[in-house]
Amino acid sequence: MTDTPAIQRWAVRIEYDGTGLVGWQRQSSGVSVQGLLEEAASRLAGGTPVGSITAGRTDAGVHALAQVAHLDFPAGIKLTPHAVREGLSYHLKPHAVVVVDAAPVSLDWNARFSATWRAYRYRILNRRARPALVAGHVWHVKSPLDTERMNEAASLLLGLHDFTSFRAAACQAKSPIRTLDHLAVRREGDEILITARARSFLHHQVRNMVGTLKQVGCGYWAPERVAQALAARDRSAAGQTAPAEGLYLSGVGYEPDPFSPPATER
Amino acid sequence: MTDTPAIQRWAVRIEYDGTGLVGWQRQSSGVSVQGLLEEAASRLAGGTPVGSITAGRTDAGVHALAQVAHLDFPAGIKLTPHAVREGLSYHLKPHAVVVVDAAPVSLDWNARFSATWRAYRYRILNRRARPALVAGHVWHVKSPLDTERMNEAASLLLGLHDFTSFRAAACQAKSPIRTLDHLAVRREGDEILITARARSFLHHQVRNMVGTLKQVGCGYWAPERVAQALAARDRSAAGQTAPAEGLYLSGVGYEPDPFSPPATER
Repeated sequence: MTDTPAIQRWAVRIEYDGTGLVGWQRQSSGVSVQGLLEEAASRLAGGTPVGSITAGRTDAGVHALAQVAHLDFPAGIKLTPHAVREGLSYHLKPHAVVVVDAAPVSLDWNARFSATWRAYRYRILNRRARPALVAGHVWHVKSPLDTERMNEAASLLLGLHDFTSFRAAACQAKSPIRTLDHLAVRREGDEILITARARSFLHHQVRNMVGTLKQVGCGYWAPERVAQALAARDRSAAGQTAPAEGLYLSGVGYEPDPFSPPATER
Repeated sequence: MTDTPAIQRWAVRIEYDGTGLVGWQRQSSGVSVQGLLEEAASRLAGGTPVGSITAGRTDAGVHALAQVAHLDFPAGIKLTPHAVREGLSYHLKPHAVVVVDAAPVSLDWNARFSATWRAYRYRILNRRARPALVAGHVWHVKSPLDTERMNEAASLLLGLHDFTSFRAAACQAKSPIRTLDHLAVRREGDEILITARARSFLHHQVRNMVGTLKQVGCGYWAPERVAQALAARDRSAAGQTAPAEGLYLSGVGYEPDPFSPPATER
């Protein structure tokens, strides 16, 4: 027995197109990001199984610009950030999943529990014509949305609240209390971009907030009704769950950031 | 015989994903935007063949955010902007081609010859990792590109020039003289966006300019070499043809704009 740990933990930042995937978590019913990543890592480790933990278990069809996970490799394998990034991305082909950055971390670092914030963005294509160039990557809403009203409603959700009204029935979190640090709505041409940030979110929370803001944007609801929906602590008081295809996990924060400076500059 | 024209001409603004298409022009070898659009128009016209003329015959794999074409419908058919836009888009399914706007125009209006400018944008993904979310929609360049140097080089191409060095061998234009009104390079995160505008462009001109600017951006060429390449009036003096998948026809200008106000507001 020695003091050398048998495991070398690596943090990885991952981009993926969620189209056609069953989401992060391994499932028997289809292709998952976790399954693809662990399979790629196992190939890089010469066949040894490699487990992973992620910062956010995205649902089927949800995309990621900057998902973070950690992977536990056997310590005996010599790996560099370059080899982990390139090797995993190679073995992830031809899937639309790629490792953008990799960094060695200590065993007390955990992609899920060390995260200090998660950020999401949600894209709505707001025009009559269906999407051609961004099909599968936006929620197509035909009726004109008023982003000022949506922004006013969004501000009512900021801060510490019981988000029961915006929580999926299947949500496994112990508490429905969350602190929403940022929620903003802006228009960029035909698209509406909704950005959200919190230490953590409940299951479907972002999509349920977006579906509710859409009710305000198209004039069905007054902005104040969102505050009433929040206060009701009842899922049926809020709006619909916005489709998965418009949602992107856009960032996960750590202090310190294991990827700073990026591996490409190391 | 009456004075009523036998044809009603419609201008349409079209968005498409060029992936897997043979380009604008009808070809026996595959699916073209022209073929899809004329087929959709013919269905809308109850089977009568409908011809089209476009502002820009994009190549295979090139995308369009705002292509413009005109369609000559038999005058007997009662059509509204709404019916043209929705009807064509319906018959264009399931292809990634959609009619975003439609407007009736006079027979002396021509999508190609009435256009006063064309605008293109070119997207480069400039990072080590291959694209996942934007695969097929960017040129992936791994080596870091210096956008300041690229911009400096771009400014040397502005104005009235003989663009022979940036013209495809197959180019059918009578003259290689063009006036480039705008060419700029900027970075947005991992992406580099190159925007270009002129009354008209030579075949492959934008892609050849981008391939040349890339030589400057990665440090192989000094910016001044682009002026030398232009002066050489020799295709081999300029850089490679950048791949089609990063190119977007982003707009076509007319005075007056037939789509103003947009049909959605009419």
